[in-house]
Amino acid sequence: MNYSQLSKEELQQIYDLQKNEYDNLVSQGYSVDIARGKPCNEQLDIAMPMLNIEGIENMPKSYRNYGMLDGIPELKKIFAQMLGVNTNEVILGGSSSLNLMYDTIQRALQFGIMGGEPWNKSAVKFLCPVPGYDRHFAICEHFGIEMVNVPMDEHGPNMDLVEQLVANDDSIKGIWCVPKYSNPTGVTYSDEVVKRLAEMKPKAKDFRIFWDNAYVVHDLTDTPDNLANIMELCKEAGTEDRVYQFASTSKVTMAGAGVSCIATSVNNVKDILSHMTMQTISYNKVWQYIHYLFLKDMDNVREIMKKQRDIIKPKFDTLLRAFEDSFGEDSGIATWTNPNGGYFITLDVLDGCAKRVCMLCKEAGLTLTAAGAPFPYGRDINDRTLRIAPTFTSDSDLIVATQILTCCVKLACVEKLLEK
Amino acid sequence: MNYSQLSKEELQQIYDLQKNEYDNLVSQGYSVDIARGKPCNEQLDIAMPMLNIEGIENMPKSYRNYGMLDGIPELKKIFAQMLGVNTNEVILGGSSSLNLMYDTIQRALQFGIMGGEPWNKSAVKFLCPVPGYDRHFAICEHFGIEMVNVPMDEHGPNMDLVEQLVANDDSIKGIWCVPKYSNPTGVTYSDEVVKRLAEMKPKAKDFRIFWDNAYVVHDLTDTPDNLANIMELCKEAGTEDRVYQFASTSKVTMAGAGVSCIATSVNNVKDILSHMTMQTISYNKVWQYIHYLFLKDMDNVREIMKKQRDIIKPKFDTLLRAFEDSFGEDSGIATWTNPNGGYFITLDVLDGCAKRVCMLCKEAGLTLTAAGAPFPYGRDINDRTLRIAPTFTSDSDLIVATQILTCCVKLACVEKLLEK
Repeated sequence: MNYSQLSKEELQQIYDLQKNEYDNLVSQGYSVDIARGKPCNEQLDIAMPMLNIEGIENMPKSYRNYGMLDGIPELKKIFAQMLGVNTNEVILGGSSSLNLMYDTIQRALQFGIMGGEPWNKSAVKFLCPVPGYDRHFAICEHFGIEMVNVPMDEHGPNMDLVEQLVANDDSIKGIWCVPKYSNPTGVTYSDEVVKRLAEMKPKAKDFRIFWDNAYVVHDLTDTPDNLANIMELCKEAGTEDRVYQFASTSKVTMAGAGVSCIATSVNNVKDILSHMTMQTISYNKVWQYIHYLFLKDMDNVREIMKKQRDIIKPKFDTLLRAFEDSFGEDSGIATWTNPNGGYFITLDVLDGCAKRVCMLCKEAGLTLTAAGAPFPYGRDINDRTLRIAPTFTSDSDLIVATQILTCCVKLACVEKLLEK
Repeated sequence: MNYSQLSKEELQQIYDLQKNEYDNLVSQGYSVDIARGKPCNEQLDIAMPMLNIEGIENMPKSYRNYGMLDGIPELKKIFAQMLGVNTNEVILGGSSSLNLMYDTIQRALQFGIMGGEPWNKSAVKFLCPVPGYDRHFAICEHFGIEMVNVPMDEHGPNMDLVEQLVANDDSIKGIWCVPKYSNPTGVTYSDEVVKRLAEMKPKAKDFRIFWDNAYVVHDLTDTPDNLANIMELCKEAGTEDRVYQFASTSKVTMAGAGVSCIATSVNNVKDILSHMTMQTISYNKVWQYIHYLFLKDMDNVREIMKKQRDIIKPKFDTLLRAFEDSFGEDSGIATWTNPNGGYFITLDVLDGCAKRVCMLCKEAGLTLTAAGAPFPYGRDINDRTLRIAPTFTSDSDLIVATQILTCCVKLACVEKLLEK
């Protein structure tokens, strides 16, 4: 059933039906939240052995003391393997990779990169593939960095546009990328996109790719996506200083108590540490060692991620089935992504309806990520895109969430069609 | 024996004797380091129960997840009691209070304080009581903040000078203070000094006191110093937004794996969080909870600090006895502090001899904090002050250290006197 081909009367019938269901849902007084990409308690339970970890008695005593600004070698090695870089290209941080990204931009603004002019001295722009991660955009907005939208398709950002923009404007200093299971679309950048990012010729000599590899091992299926190794491609292209790669164990161990890292060229590592050594003496190396004991090696990391997947994949399936049942293939009012990994489903509704869906959901007790959030300045010019985060909610609440969500999408879209 | 009253011949005799002893020490090939204020392994052992802590099963599950930017209430309460503030005046950080200080200055530079003009927009100066903490000065130097020396005496910084400087120069935006057991002199600010700091009238409306209360519970004797509560005094004076107070458990639990905090007015807390919420989602709340379980309450913190004292007080005594034996009261070549707490002894030698002492010690295998380090830009205009950090070294190494140090002080000072 394609809604746009229905008569006014047919639409009105559907509207009345949905309105009835909606009023019923509102009357239930539900309270469900699928706004943020947070792990659920069952996922967090996986890492509970960290709190009483076997082998801790073998921790080098010096790890308890000051020093080792770049982190402990045992855990650097695991991150290096995870990200396809050398161990000396890794700096470990505290619990938040966002903090490392923020600090990296703040350093560039205040001090410049590798002795270059501080970004604060002139106007700075960042390319923002859209839809994207709201917290990346929030950092730019907070620092007054102008954001330039670049549309995403199923291969990643539109590289013709990226290449053209960076080649002609030396105020464009960076690009935000979530290259694998992108937040929120789940897209993994194609080999060609990664290669072109490595090989393109930015006018700004201090241009940097902020490669937020947040979902590097976060597969949901037996046919996971494969992301090309940007560091290798950059080394081949002679552009190895171009990429700051970020990752963390927030969605491997504990979201609020992971270990973060930045992986980048040896030159960049040296540049970063020259400032970081003024900022802190060291991050928490005991927690890093506990992580090392728990993660062990990449084989074990993959085992942990299978456990994670077993918990969250059914939640994705619940939503995907409900979308299929409610909207089918040709309703014309909704399309959605079916990602091989990551934390999100993107639901695109009829143009001009996303905000209305959010508002209707909220009144019925379901909190969604704000419409517009996946866009710079919160501006979705099509008012179309909704980011759905199924992981945190309990299975029973998720069923409620799908009921409310699908009802509200239908209601909002039929309203819109009736306006015409 | 006052060296300055000795004849050339007597001095030469002492020189020959010391040179002989020195050559003997050099020939031993020692390697000892008393440069940094680091806890020793026995101190760090005290906190080992944290790694397998009783009661962890009662941790609220949400602490493992994202959120709670300002930290967990249980540990905020302990810090609040420790620092004499309210719980809502505390923000918990990661493992490093230096990181919180650096970030606080960086925020002021980039964004200004409470909507004021960003400090980056004009020249900024900080008052630096000297001698002081080298890492404070390193932050200023790194940011290009001009440092203005203020001499310390046994009551704290010279307040006549501080009041006069801040009243007449609105580019003076801050003052570094280690108010209790000051690094490196061990001085605790007198009640009057604290009161005058709270009541003075800086020309800069966004002037801030950086109150690094690093040694708030770090007593070494049964007659500990008492530091007036600056927050209370500021509230009385109507200047409660003036102070950023910092502390950490680095020297209570583990130096490289403590929990840090900033304690400041509710207005400042709000201002800081408005930026911090862009920087990170949360610090490591699991580690915060483990700290809460281990620290329990202030009574238990005091018990822990007694254990710390039992380990390090004998090390201070070893040095103090050696200084007494070697220099007596009226040698005229060395004076030293006998602190009631903290991590350092300051040894002042004959003017113009500190660098030479460091060099001689180094050649004999003893690493000291670089002469000049306790001063902005590393400039001790008198070339007089040495910072001694006895805690990290083993008891046997400390005996070697005292032999080398006392020998080198005599040698350098006699050399200097012979030049005249």
